[in-house]
Amino acid sequence: MPRYRLLIEYDGAGFVGWQKQANGLSVQEALSKAVFGFCGENADVTGAGRTDAGVHASGQTAHVDLSKEWPVDTIRDAINFHLRPHAVCVLAADLVADDFHARFDAVGREYRYVILNRKPPVTLERGKVWHVVAPLDAGAMHEAAQFLVGRHDFTTFRAAACQAKSPIKTVEHVSVSRHGSHIVIEAKERSFLHNQVRSFAGTLKWVGEGKWRPSDVADALAARDRTRCGPVAPPDGLTLVAVRY
Amino acid sequence: MPRYRLLIEYDGAGFVGWQKQANGLSVQEALSKAVFGFCGENADVTGAGRTDAGVHASGQTAHVDLSKEWPVDTIRDAINFHLRPHAVCVLAADLVADDFHARFDAVGREYRYVILNRKPPVTLERGKVWHVVAPLDAGAMHEAAQFLVGRHDFTTFRAAACQAKSPIKTVEHVSVSRHGSHIVIEAKERSFLHNQVRSFAGTLKWVGEGKWRPSDVADALAARDRTRCGPVAPPDGLTLVAVRY
Repeated sequence: MPRYRLLIEYDGAGFVGWQKQANGLSVQEALSKAVFGFCGENADVTGAGRTDAGVHASGQTAHVDLSKEWPVDTIRDAINFHLRPHAVCVLAADLVADDFHARFDAVGREYRYVILNRKPPVTLERGKVWHVVAPLDAGAMHEAAQFLVGRHDFTTFRAAACQAKSPIKTVEHVSVSRHGSHIVIEAKERSFLHNQVRSFAGTLKWVGEGKWRPSDVADALAARDRTRCGPVAPPDGLTLVAVRY
Repeated sequence: MPRYRLLIEYDGAGFVGWQKQANGLSVQEALSKAVFGFCGENADVTGAGRTDAGVHASGQTAHVDLSKEWPVDTIRDAINFHLRPHAVCVLAADLVADDFHARFDAVGREYRYVILNRKPPVTLERGKVWHVVAPLDAGAMHEAAQFLVGRHDFTTFRAAACQAKSPIKTVEHVSVSRHGSHIVIEAKERSFLHNQVRSFAGTLKWVGEGKWRPSDVADALAARDRTRCGPVAPPDGLTLVAVRY
């Protein structure tokens, strides 16, 4: 059976997350139903990143097997037609090798976390940013973030429910920069632990507001203790930007 | 009575437009009610630009008279408190001269119009862009836009209902640029005619898709005939970015 790779964009607000769940519509289920609507096949859609409820994607990637070969633009357009009115779409489809795996073949994932750092409430970006009123020092946050780069045991920064076998991961890149009232955190890693970026964001916010020194992040990391993590930042500000193969 | 200038941001989707109307909540009415909630005064809030229903603002400016003097941050925060849950906020308040007028003293207004130019539907930017599927040539659109710069009779590009005494205006700047799938139109003018930017955007879209040559825009302008205008682009893509004094 031909295997197709799908590049997917969605607004996480309308979904219970990527993965199929009993308590509401997931992105995965919306896609499976759209595939069925298009060609009548019950096909699994396997994604690269299992984003949580409310988390967005501009570059999620998945694969799906269909019993016949279709022009890739037909696949993209037909799935999009059947995805309506949900806020998810296929940006591109392409034919890949039979053994391509969206999750296991990924060599890098990139997330972006956006904080709106100002006193007035959110209007134009509702559901897309974390609103933080206390003035944040992006320079201190960036300095602290550098302690997270490299190969470490990230027990402090993963959800208790994380299903990864090992808490040891190699963070390739974390940066924090200010653009007017926006603070942007960018993180790159082969594969992330559950809630890792949101745990980074919440902890870095403590550094930004001066509650923690940058070196406190190094201490929290070294402690390998979930209770030493800052608050887990809300999903709204998080976007899965790209998956590399 | 002290006069205050307010810098205002809003998502136009939840409003019938800037100006008070019988058929629903306007931004102006939401602000007047919030001022009343804060200090019990029935004050008029006079805006620089009367944006239509669905049009956004990141830099609308208004003035309001209050009977007593307040710290400007108190005004900003108290109005914002009373604006909830509407998607509008005061970004900044400052005390201005008694004769300052948000509308008549403005020497420049800046609008941005964003088109999402791709086949897949809109997800993350719903209500914030005009979705155009046909591939657009931004270079041709920019070339055409230059015919609109300068002092002209813009009868072709204003709504039949436009209340301005004269259709003669001086467009300072119009540019069209592509950023990935986004096409951004920026327009600067002392004061705009009703639907002028949306008339520009719809007409430039015709040029972008090759239905019109750039010089056809010059001909339409010279005709001074509303029926020669392209389609009026939807409000979603339009934002009042700044007002200069």
